[in-house]
Amino acid sequence: MTSLPSVSNSITVRLELPSRATAVSELTGAVERAGGLVTGLDINSSYSDRLRVDVTAAARDSDHADDLVEAMRQVEGVNVQKVSDRTFLAHLGGKIKIEAKAPIRNRDDLSMIYTPGVARVCLAIADNPEDARRLTIKRNTIAVVTDGTAVLGLGNIGPLAAMPVMEGKAALFKRFGDIDAFPICLDTTDTEEIIRTVKAIAPGFAGINLEDISAPRCFEIEARLRDELDIPVFHDDQHGTAIVALAALRNALRVVGKELADVRIVQSGAGAAGSAITRLLLHAGARDVIVTDINGVVSKDRADIADGRDPNLTWIAEHTNPRGFNGTLKEALRDADVFIGVSAPHIVAEEDVATMAKDAIVFAMANPVPEIEPELAAKHATVVATGRSDFANQINNVLVFPGVFRGLLDAQADGIDLDIMLAAAKALSDVVKPEELNPTYIIPSVFHPDLSSVIARAVTEAAEANGRGRVEQD
Amino acid sequence: MTSLPSVSNSITVRLELPSRATAVSELTGAVERAGGLVTGLDINSSYSDRLRVDVTAAARDSDHADDLVEAMRQVEGVNVQKVSDRTFLAHLGGKIKIEAKAPIRNRDDLSMIYTPGVARVCLAIADNPEDARRLTIKRNTIAVVTDGTAVLGLGNIGPLAAMPVMEGKAALFKRFGDIDAFPICLDTTDTEEIIRTVKAIAPGFAGINLEDISAPRCFEIEARLRDELDIPVFHDDQHGTAIVALAALRNALRVVGKELADVRIVQSGAGAAGSAITRLLLHAGARDVIVTDINGVVSKDRADIADGRDPNLTWIAEHTNPRGFNGTLKEALRDADVFIGVSAPHIVAEEDVATMAKDAIVFAMANPVPEIEPELAAKHATVVATGRSDFANQINNVLVFPGVFRGLLDAQADGIDLDIMLAAAKALSDVVKPEELNPTYIIPSVFHPDLSSVIARAVTEAAEANGRGRVEQD
Repeated sequence: MTSLPSVSNSITVRLELPSRATAVSELTGAVERAGGLVTGLDINSSYSDRLRVDVTAAARDSDHADDLVEAMRQVEGVNVQKVSDRTFLAHLGGKIKIEAKAPIRNRDDLSMIYTPGVARVCLAIADNPEDARRLTIKRNTIAVVTDGTAVLGLGNIGPLAAMPVMEGKAALFKRFGDIDAFPICLDTTDTEEIIRTVKAIAPGFAGINLEDISAPRCFEIEARLRDELDIPVFHDDQHGTAIVALAALRNALRVVGKELADVRIVQSGAGAAGSAITRLLLHAGARDVIVTDINGVVSKDRADIADGRDPNLTWIAEHTNPRGFNGTLKEALRDADVFIGVSAPHIVAEEDVATMAKDAIVFAMANPVPEIEPELAAKHATVVATGRSDFANQINNVLVFPGVFRGLLDAQADGIDLDIMLAAAKALSDVVKPEELNPTYIIPSVFHPDLSSVIARAVTEAAEANGRGRVEQD
Repeated sequence: MTSLPSVSNSITVRLELPSRATAVSELTGAVERAGGLVTGLDINSSYSDRLRVDVTAAARDSDHADDLVEAMRQVEGVNVQKVSDRTFLAHLGGKIKIEAKAPIRNRDDLSMIYTPGVARVCLAIADNPEDARRLTIKRNTIAVVTDGTAVLGLGNIGPLAAMPVMEGKAALFKRFGDIDAFPICLDTTDTEEIIRTVKAIAPGFAGINLEDISAPRCFEIEARLRDELDIPVFHDDQHGTAIVALAALRNALRVVGKELADVRIVQSGAGAAGSAITRLLLHAGARDVIVTDINGVVSKDRADIADGRDPNLTWIAEHTNPRGFNGTLKEALRDADVFIGVSAPHIVAEEDVATMAKDAIVFAMANPVPEIEPELAAKHATVVATGRSDFANQINNVLVFPGVFRGLLDAQADGIDLDIMLAAAKALSDVVKPEELNPTYIIPSVFHPDLSSVIARAVTEAAEANGRGRVEQD
């Protein structure tokens, strides 16, 4: 499959163009013939014999961007002066900033927000630590913590190279949840050291969003921090993905008229995302889930599970596969109602989908290349979703994490659990109204205006209902 | 000494007032007779028989604020409805916020600052880690780190209660240095644990500002971090104070026409601030410095120093007191040209200052109560400075830390040393022009418009000159 030109591979080319009448159309034509998409053309300055122009064009990837520049250069009389990569331009100096909430204009302002006035506020918090949620940024601030070991699909690129993702996440937290999130990129991959560090920096934060920490360390880190801290610890790769997947599945089942409790679900992948999805599916009422990973069906018979070394796989083995299925992924898919993939590219074939039950649902969420290309899956399945933005039904964590944390912060929650996650998933799926629901719209847009507030309200209510909230009436 | 009413103890009182002609003046008169200062009076709504008014008044302290409210209540017909503390109001929800630098309006924006576009930026940094200074917030971001053990004059109040100070500091970094500073309040007071934690979170920062960590732990923490990190580590209580004190002293010496190399200096206090001041004084050319602490003159003969347990005191003993003075602080002050106090309230008497040399200089910087009240010192000394904002010549770190870090960040410095600190002190003192200099103006206002940029330039130049900078020409 050839991907389409994307703004994320967009370049701006400053060039000089002869002032003949056809020059602009020759130029845009050249870009288009080379497979690019001209998205902007600004005339910078004009002379009697030539124009200076900034051409912005979307390419498929970096190599293709080079091709587009070459195509422009080939237009007669064109003189290319400078090529800028728009994505890199958008990153110059980083993507977030810190601002003072109130101006500091004079000594009076200074004496209130700093010495000597600040001392009284410090003493008030020393007397009553809960006041920190009223009188400091703790109320609305979370840490986005990574060790850079599992960044996007890029793997272990380290803490510095992970920064752009964490900053982007912080920007999204602000945009969609009005949350102050700050990136903390750790110069250690040691489980105990990560746990110690996060605990040490925790006082100023009202929540921890773990991000892109590789399995299986992420399980222990998250579990331990959840036990040892009194603020919510959310691992977006696990919990965010699980919530969106369940929300999408609820709506997909509505489309095909099936019930979660009745369907056969086959899941490929038992890593961070996979095991969180399994747990949430079961909590939501799914009863027939078969989980496979690179070594086959997850079951107690397997040598790598029988020894109990991996508590995560052991748990999955004990709680799934009620019919004792024993075979390949291909065989498991026969008559299955739902396939959920969070594993590897192209491991499901078109003919496998053809053997699934009527009105099959296929979520092929491996990133950036799905378990099966959605066009192929759609030949046999009724509802198809992926993690990609260039197809319908994108299973995207951005749908979830801002609203979930907004709700946790509003509730001053001391943690997050499966009830809260289930409430978030239900709220997200219910954002799609019955009359909007169809096989290509099971999940709303990230820019849906009500999204975060609806999820936040559901999360706050669930946190208060199960005693994890601590909002008091003033 | 009775302190003056201060905005940092300011209250806003909402009250109803009868509509008789003299009511407002009766009210303001009552506040003034009670020693308060009315700084604002807003009529909120008016009825035929009464007014609803918000009165803002400065008090000396919290008890005095209660007195002022009582005085208002005594005015005939006044009905007090609500009392708000302006300093607490200024702290509601904290004092800083995080913002995205660019709007996220649509999927194209999303695809550049987050997935999939961000992946190319991550890979660029993975290939060339130095690019993090170009493509992430690291370029302009520092951590303000404390363990809450020595906050202002309040002592060990813990990390949560320290937050308002660290947030205030972050706000000042933005206001005066255009620096993105984020507070990190540590839930540990263990030296090794603090070092480990700061090292672990360091990748995303271009500098570390240690703050309010008690001595002697602060010395080892700072020294170790300086050795083990490749970004500047600045302990404001030490280095900031030392730079301002030296800058003020240079100008005080100009006022009295003496040279640093020639004067006798007596210093009281060998804690965090004290020892940094001593080191910087010596580096700047001072030759006759006697340091005293609670156990007397710091010298190798002292039992608590001879055993070498405290490397800081040992260093001071080895590098000061060239005349082998052995006596009390009182005795040391006889014929001294300069007294610098960073120790305890009221340990110097008026008659001690009287025994100092002609044109004596007294910096009584203990906070909030100085070593000697400035009015008393001024009877015998020519130049007097304190750490307080309600006297002339306030030795205030805010004068220094924003400009110093601005310069370090601009130079992409890998550390800070005495040469850089000396350059900062010289730049700060030179902000006061010869024609402005007088005994009550040896140090500029925090709001002096050129202050931070002048210090920053000096710091950048010094860092580049001694090889600590790494700015390259692009």
